[in-house]
Amino acid sequence: MNNALVIGLDYGTDSCRAVLVDTATGEEIASSVQYYPRWAAGAYCDPESNRYRQHPLDYIDTLEASVKEVLGKCPGAAARVVGIAIDTTGSTPVLTNENGAPLALLPPFEENPNAMFVLWKDHTAVREAAEINELARQWHTDYTAYEGGVYSSEWVWAKMLRVLRVDKQVRESARSWVEHCDWIPALLTGNEHPTRLKRSRCAAGHKAMWHAKWGGLPPEEFFVAIDPLLAGFRERLFTDTFTSDRPAGQLTREWGARLGLAPGIVVAVGAFDCHMGAVGAQIKPGVFVRVIGTSTCDVMVVDPQELGDKLIPGICGQVDGSVIPGMIGLEAGQSAFGDVYAWFKRVLAWPIEQLAAPLVENKAAFVEETLDRLIPALSEAAAKIPPGASSLVATDWMNGRRTPDANQLLKGTIAGITLASSAPALFRALVEATAFGSRAIVERFLENGIRINEVTGIGGIALKSPFVMQTLADVLGMPVQVSRAGQACAVGAAMFAAVAAGVHPTVEQARDVMGQGFARVYTPDPAAHAIYTRLYYQYRAIGQAVNL
Amino acid sequence: MNNALVIGLDYGTDSCRAVLVDTATGEEIASSVQYYPRWAAGAYCDPESNRYRQHPLDYIDTLEASVKEVLGKCPGAAARVVGIAIDTTGSTPVLTNENGAPLALLPPFEENPNAMFVLWKDHTAVREAAEINELARQWHTDYTAYEGGVYSSEWVWAKMLRVLRVDKQVRESARSWVEHCDWIPALLTGNEHPTRLKRSRCAAGHKAMWHAKWGGLPPEEFFVAIDPLLAGFRERLFTDTFTSDRPAGQLTREWGARLGLAPGIVVAVGAFDCHMGAVGAQIKPGVFVRVIGTSTCDVMVVDPQELGDKLIPGICGQVDGSVIPGMIGLEAGQSAFGDVYAWFKRVLAWPIEQLAAPLVENKAAFVEETLDRLIPALSEAAAKIPPGASSLVATDWMNGRRTPDANQLLKGTIAGITLASSAPALFRALVEATAFGSRAIVERFLENGIRINEVTGIGGIALKSPFVMQTLADVLGMPVQVSRAGQACAVGAAMFAAVAAGVHPTVEQARDVMGQGFARVYTPDPAAHAIYTRLYYQYRAIGQAVNL
Repeated sequence: MNNALVIGLDYGTDSCRAVLVDTATGEEIASSVQYYPRWAAGAYCDPESNRYRQHPLDYIDTLEASVKEVLGKCPGAAARVVGIAIDTTGSTPVLTNENGAPLALLPPFEENPNAMFVLWKDHTAVREAAEINELARQWHTDYTAYEGGVYSSEWVWAKMLRVLRVDKQVRESARSWVEHCDWIPALLTGNEHPTRLKRSRCAAGHKAMWHAKWGGLPPEEFFVAIDPLLAGFRERLFTDTFTSDRPAGQLTREWGARLGLAPGIVVAVGAFDCHMGAVGAQIKPGVFVRVIGTSTCDVMVVDPQELGDKLIPGICGQVDGSVIPGMIGLEAGQSAFGDVYAWFKRVLAWPIEQLAAPLVENKAAFVEETLDRLIPALSEAAAKIPPGASSLVATDWMNGRRTPDANQLLKGTIAGITLASSAPALFRALVEATAFGSRAIVERFLENGIRINEVTGIGGIALKSPFVMQTLADVLGMPVQVSRAGQACAVGAAMFAAVAAGVHPTVEQARDVMGQGFARVYTPDPAAHAIYTRLYYQYRAIGQAVNL
Repeated sequence: MNNALVIGLDYGTDSCRAVLVDTATGEEIASSVQYYPRWAAGAYCDPESNRYRQHPLDYIDTLEASVKEVLGKCPGAAARVVGIAIDTTGSTPVLTNENGAPLALLPPFEENPNAMFVLWKDHTAVREAAEINELARQWHTDYTAYEGGVYSSEWVWAKMLRVLRVDKQVRESARSWVEHCDWIPALLTGNEHPTRLKRSRCAAGHKAMWHAKWGGLPPEEFFVAIDPLLAGFRERLFTDTFTSDRPAGQLTREWGARLGLAPGIVVAVGAFDCHMGAVGAQIKPGVFVRVIGTSTCDVMVVDPQELGDKLIPGICGQVDGSVIPGMIGLEAGQSAFGDVYAWFKRVLAWPIEQLAAPLVENKAAFVEETLDRLIPALSEAAAKIPPGASSLVATDWMNGRRTPDANQLLKGTIAGITLASSAPALFRALVEATAFGSRAIVERFLENGIRINEVTGIGGIALKSPFVMQTLADVLGMPVQVSRAGQACAVGAAMFAAVAAGVHPTVEQARDVMGQGFARVYTPDPAAHAIYTRLYYQYRAIGQAVNL
């Protein structure tokens, strides 16, 4: 299998990426990015109420298009492909019928957002998460213990309950649910049945309260106590979960034909994007790997012996094998990172769109050209302001807080405003705020004895914004390296595909053989770090004080 | 004297206005606005360090130009003018030589900002104000008691000490100081000598710790205890002060010639703009009169019998005769009001100036046209958002807080930010913040038994922004009326000129005869008021919590 190829498929928030990778060298032979057509048109979403839904057909359309495009770029490659692995955002679940089909694929639900995948960043289930937490506090066993001790509105049970509550028609047809990362492998291997499809350890352990200690999911009476609407779901779900070095099954004849691949090749068990991305970015103990985009997903691995029976409070969980089989995967993250900058950009865009554009001839081109340069220009101007020079201190909870200590009701604050506070100074304060949010996560790990020597960044912001990455290094006081893999999640998926297909014996070996190294290292400035430490304590004080 | 005319002169932050008024009807026969030329060019100021200085020649140039322009508009009017009165911003003092001449009029100080008038909004003396407060707390008599119990960095002694400390050359030539409102009458009447010129009760009582109870200014040992640099100033200043119904003197032959007026006509004792403006807006007990512009100056009058010996903490003072002779004048104010909106405008202007303008041909006109429509467009969009609909709550201390409880180190905050917070929603939150700052002042008066039935607004914002005025009425839960007098301060000065010249026997009578009535009344919406009361308590909580 010396010339074996694998395909890594990464479903992000806006698009699906496929990479075709050489298992012997890690070389990325071809890649393709396909944007979700319905999502791009703004369908099924309501940002005002934080409702973000995705249609399963968006996933199917982009799956076919991206795989066909990479194969089309490399004549003869299809025959050499021995495996596929898939990662997705998460928790991004959908309610299904008794056969495991997402309801939105069936009449009369084709246009019903409640029958679609509830995207990770959907925050409609704040109340449901609060109820789960309240009950978990009172129960003899805390089933949220391995998910940081706080259940989030971003996670599957809160989301499914929310949809069941608000939509009678969906409620009457829903029999089970499936995570996006489990549904795609199930679809490709013809094994969609809710109790038989191979569920991801990563998704189940971090988001569904699955844990070996209590033999799988929490007991039926716990779910019924949350809400009788959940009665019966548990038995139509799963007990076992699987790490992504394992095959979910083999590619069906039908999907082989649709994708242009040989039927029978291995499809690996799926996982969440940042977990596979962490492997793509060559994670190892002591390295804090962050997928930095609109939000962050942060991942670490730690030896089970080293962690012992310690519970780390307020993170998104600690799950055996969720990243690398045999190690405990730790997940954390910020609910908004690049989204904070995007918010400021929208605020500044208002007068350009409303007042300036009507004065020029080619309005659309004018707006696009101006706004495309906005974040780079703000970054350039902000980088010239010395740390601590303005009085501004902001918090980063414009989309709530995922970790440490999930609270989606929190909101953002900008304090220390004077009449001299400029747009670049405000932007700088927002960048610092996102770095302070990162520091709060790092400190939570350090406080619990998890060593962190360095940080690896992957994702759009990591690659595109040296100003943000230098600020992150300065605030954390740690070197921050950026993976050379432009599509680290998809590359990570390719590594898992290679292991599931038997090309490499372990995930660690696939990582070491197929890893692409680092493009750049940001070294912290000790003087800036000292100033930021003072500002970080102001950030914490503001966060404690302002709780609207 | 049935056809007697008077001239009211109002020195604002940016310009000097003259109005020529008929004493029998209050009719505004002519007016002129002249902008300070050096100030307009940005000279002598440093916004970054909150240093704002004005050259005495700016005042002289605009005095001549404005008076000449109004007289030029009305041939034959000059001979009918029987009096002039002057109001200015304040505290806006300057250091003088032994003859009372502002140092900046003398070599080598012509270009030295420390030898110029220190404008009301200059905040360079924060440390000095803190030292005065610290000493006042320890002294047997609290000389700040009638100035709200907190001495401000905006006031004369803090400012003069600051300049004496930082500028050795100025220090060696300075022998006394004079407020802008006292210097112009002194100049016009040829009586500049520091111990002989007629000092305004208004300025002295509200800003210089003058009070009849301790026989004038605080004793020499108090000033020396603040700083030995102040030694000797007290004896080169004043013991008596005068209300503005009294003549400061008669127009000199020289100034009669320069202005085109008859020498010998009465020049009234000066006062601060908002105090004369309150009279121009027909102040009476129970009415809270506000000059609403970049900042606010708020004025009330109360019967001395009603107030008794009560001290109102945290305002800018309570001074017998500072507004209407025989009544106690109460002063308060917000350090920034329109300046808060102007700050947001500057933030939003950044991408228009930096990125959009370079893409169009006629850059200057494009920027001007866009920015001129910005505040009106934001107001229009913000007015459509129901009260309480966004989660945003802001504070208004972007320029510190003048009242209640002066603290120029405070800064502004915007809290409750979500990814959906739009530019108009942010603008609305800022408008609400300025109204909440107003409510905090109103509540301080009410808590101390001062009755307030209604609010009268004068100044640029009062006349130009229905959205802001309606929000103010809704937040206060009180009717807000807007004076018909476009230049209420200058009109008020004209009323004082008429009394000082003997045309009317009392200020009340001049007010009633010459008053111009009200252009509009904003009636509070009870439902909005209830919502704003909840938000106001969030405003107060944020203010207490966030103290960078």
